[in-house]
Amino acid sequence: MKAQIVTIGDEILIGQIIDTNSAWMAEQLNLQGISILEMTSIGDTREEILRGLQYALSRADLVLVTGGLGPTKDDITKKTIAEFFGAEMVLHQPTYDRIKRFFEKLNRAIPHEAILQQCLVPNNCTVLTNKMGTAPGMWFAHEGKIIISMPGVPSEMKNIMEHEALPRLKKELAGLPIAHRTILTAGEGETNLAKMIEDIEDNLPPNLKIAYLPSIGQVRLRLTGRHENEATLNEMLNEYAAKLEERVSKYVYGHEKETIEAVIGQILLSQGKKITFAESCTGGYVQHRLTAVAGASAYFAGGVVAYSYELKTKMLKVKASTLKKHGAVSEETVIEMAQGALKLTGADVAVSVSGIAGPTGGTPEKPVGTIWMAVADKNRVKTMLLRTGRDRMTNIHYAGNQVLNMTRKFLLGEW
Amino acid sequence: MKAQIVTIGDEILIGQIIDTNSAWMAEQLNLQGISILEMTSIGDTREEILRGLQYALSRADLVLVTGGLGPTKDDITKKTIAEFFGAEMVLHQPTYDRIKRFFEKLNRAIPHEAILQQCLVPNNCTVLTNKMGTAPGMWFAHEGKIIISMPGVPSEMKNIMEHEALPRLKKELAGLPIAHRTILTAGEGETNLAKMIEDIEDNLPPNLKIAYLPSIGQVRLRLTGRHENEATLNEMLNEYAAKLEERVSKYVYGHEKETIEAVIGQILLSQGKKITFAESCTGGYVQHRLTAVAGASAYFAGGVVAYSYELKTKMLKVKASTLKKHGAVSEETVIEMAQGALKLTGADVAVSVSGIAGPTGGTPEKPVGTIWMAVADKNRVKTMLLRTGRDRMTNIHYAGNQVLNMTRKFLLGEW
Repeated sequence: MKAQIVTIGDEILIGQIIDTNSAWMAEQLNLQGISILEMTSIGDTREEILRGLQYALSRADLVLVTGGLGPTKDDITKKTIAEFFGAEMVLHQPTYDRIKRFFEKLNRAIPHEAILQQCLVPNNCTVLTNKMGTAPGMWFAHEGKIIISMPGVPSEMKNIMEHEALPRLKKELAGLPIAHRTILTAGEGETNLAKMIEDIEDNLPPNLKIAYLPSIGQVRLRLTGRHENEATLNEMLNEYAAKLEERVSKYVYGHEKETIEAVIGQILLSQGKKITFAESCTGGYVQHRLTAVAGASAYFAGGVVAYSYELKTKMLKVKASTLKKHGAVSEETVIEMAQGALKLTGADVAVSVSGIAGPTGGTPEKPVGTIWMAVADKNRVKTMLLRTGRDRMTNIHYAGNQVLNMTRKFLLGEW
Repeated sequence: MKAQIVTIGDEILIGQIIDTNSAWMAEQLNLQGISILEMTSIGDTREEILRGLQYALSRADLVLVTGGLGPTKDDITKKTIAEFFGAEMVLHQPTYDRIKRFFEKLNRAIPHEAILQQCLVPNNCTVLTNKMGTAPGMWFAHEGKIIISMPGVPSEMKNIMEHEALPRLKKELAGLPIAHRTILTAGEGETNLAKMIEDIEDNLPPNLKIAYLPSIGQVRLRLTGRHENEATLNEMLNEYAAKLEERVSKYVYGHEKETIEAVIGQILLSQGKKITFAESCTGGYVQHRLTAVAGASAYFAGGVVAYSYELKTKMLKVKASTLKKHGAVSEETVIEMAQGALKLTGADVAVSVSGIAGPTGGTPEKPVGTIWMAVADKNRVKTMLLRTGRDRMTNIHYAGNQVLNMTRKFLLGEW
């Protein structure tokens, strides 16, 4: 099955918003073995929508359409699709009842006119329930092809995809069952990882394949398989995923959709420990990452952003002589910062970062991108030096990924 | 002039990367009065690239192509474009010299083979210098239309657009000169802003128009004009931008490409003040925003992420009785947090945030999204309560935008 994605909205074409829906939908379809021929973004005029549908259906078996389903006058996707199919609009009572309950729950007046607008659907569609908003999703079967129309609001589109569209698509797929195992690694590049597992990859059974999905400082290894028997498929995937993982175990931080910060949270919970941070150049970014995980208050003791000499000495008890002799960006300073944070907060583990994020502040000995990091508990302290001469935000993000991975390994006794 | 954007790369179609280039290019073209008919993302096969070019040229006067210009074997855009035009590949000596100098500067061995590959260009193109990487950009004039090919790496594409492509495009544009003024607002919605300036908008000269560009908690008002005489155009824009700004002055935080955190930095520098933060539910996000601005160390005294009762009492001296009586999410607590941060750091201004980011931790009286914020100096303290019952990350981002705007107004004596 080949698919095409069509996103509708002038706000995309003027560059006001970045289309993140297409990548998300593409990844979901890919996991089902459906490949994407093309993604297009078009304006919200009748002519463009008709033309875009025609073009997509001329190439693909499946067309996903997002956007243009709101109640305002520039939201014309629904009526244009109805026109495309020569369908009539009919009231979908379950949608009306659902929206009415939604307003009642909020204790808000029910705008009947606007709701009615949202409950009218082409009479040739199957409604896909939208649990996150008012506009229903729609499924059309047409001359052996499938067209799915969803709202452009990411949370609504994702909800409809996960609970309505993907389960139905799985039933429609004629191909063999497909499944995946994803191994998440950090700290080694794609090329070197490929060398480490070269012989395994070369001798994979023909129904399995490996994909390398790199991002900043991290690589995801995705093993995909197809087999008529799902139990056999899962056994094969488990066997080869275990082989791969054993080979690169030094770099594995998690599986499937985990994040490194969520993994750290799980380790801290299981060890009954609390963590603290003393950040300088990362300016709060690492703590922001950690606290993006729901429930972080169970293991995060809080921390400091010690951006100045004063706070380093006053709160973290870094010795003035250390700062004077070695500078704020030094192994000696990050060690004292981490040890000071332990004492200050009473946490079990402390993480510190101090560096030159740039674009200014570099020297010949310590150029922009020189970043020292330390992780300490009451018995041990480990340090790492990064040299990454990129732009300010990339330096901050890269340091964040690296120090979180270092923290994970420290907690597991692997560093 | 109508444009179409074509991004090439399988990594886009499998959802591995989000295409941010298209939105950026669209915004730049829009500012020149060029509208985008369609954006498409296609795979890196010869057939798809030929087909994509054909399709784009059948609709648009200008086609921007990114991706597929690297030195590896799946980078086939350049030779496919040459095939499309029936052009021959020739060595572009200035590109060769430039890349050679680049490697010499890095003291790295010069990989002549790989460089040669990058220096071959179709003989019908004008080379657009890429100052950020090895692959040159290319400009083709073909049957009255323009095709521009650029690398997919965002920093390289942006450099070529800014320094090479856009200046050439401006010369090609037959239309009247175009210019813009952007007024950045926070704290009021699009609909209400539109009402405040309704009479000005209704009476605009026909060569001026207003666009509303909303994002989370903020709206950009963009005034665009065209006129044969650039001096007259600028006078008109200045006059009407001033009228608009006067009307919505209460909400204006900056102009053009400024960010609210950079504006705060400028105010602090001009007032000779230092700022500190005591964050709870935002977990370091607000300090991360502030320190994303280069040079923040000049006015940021550092701060704390007081995620626990313990740190709130120990570092910020919030009274245990206050926490017990009013809870951590209360006006009383954020006031004591801000005042404690002032004393702790010696800063002139302190900002505090405490709330329930969710998804758990809410109660009937304080549901998820209840967030208290305070800004204090030694004479004054101001507070604000947010109620935003969205997902955890949206609550954190929304609180960040709101508290930064509150801080800006406090510093200016407007709050």
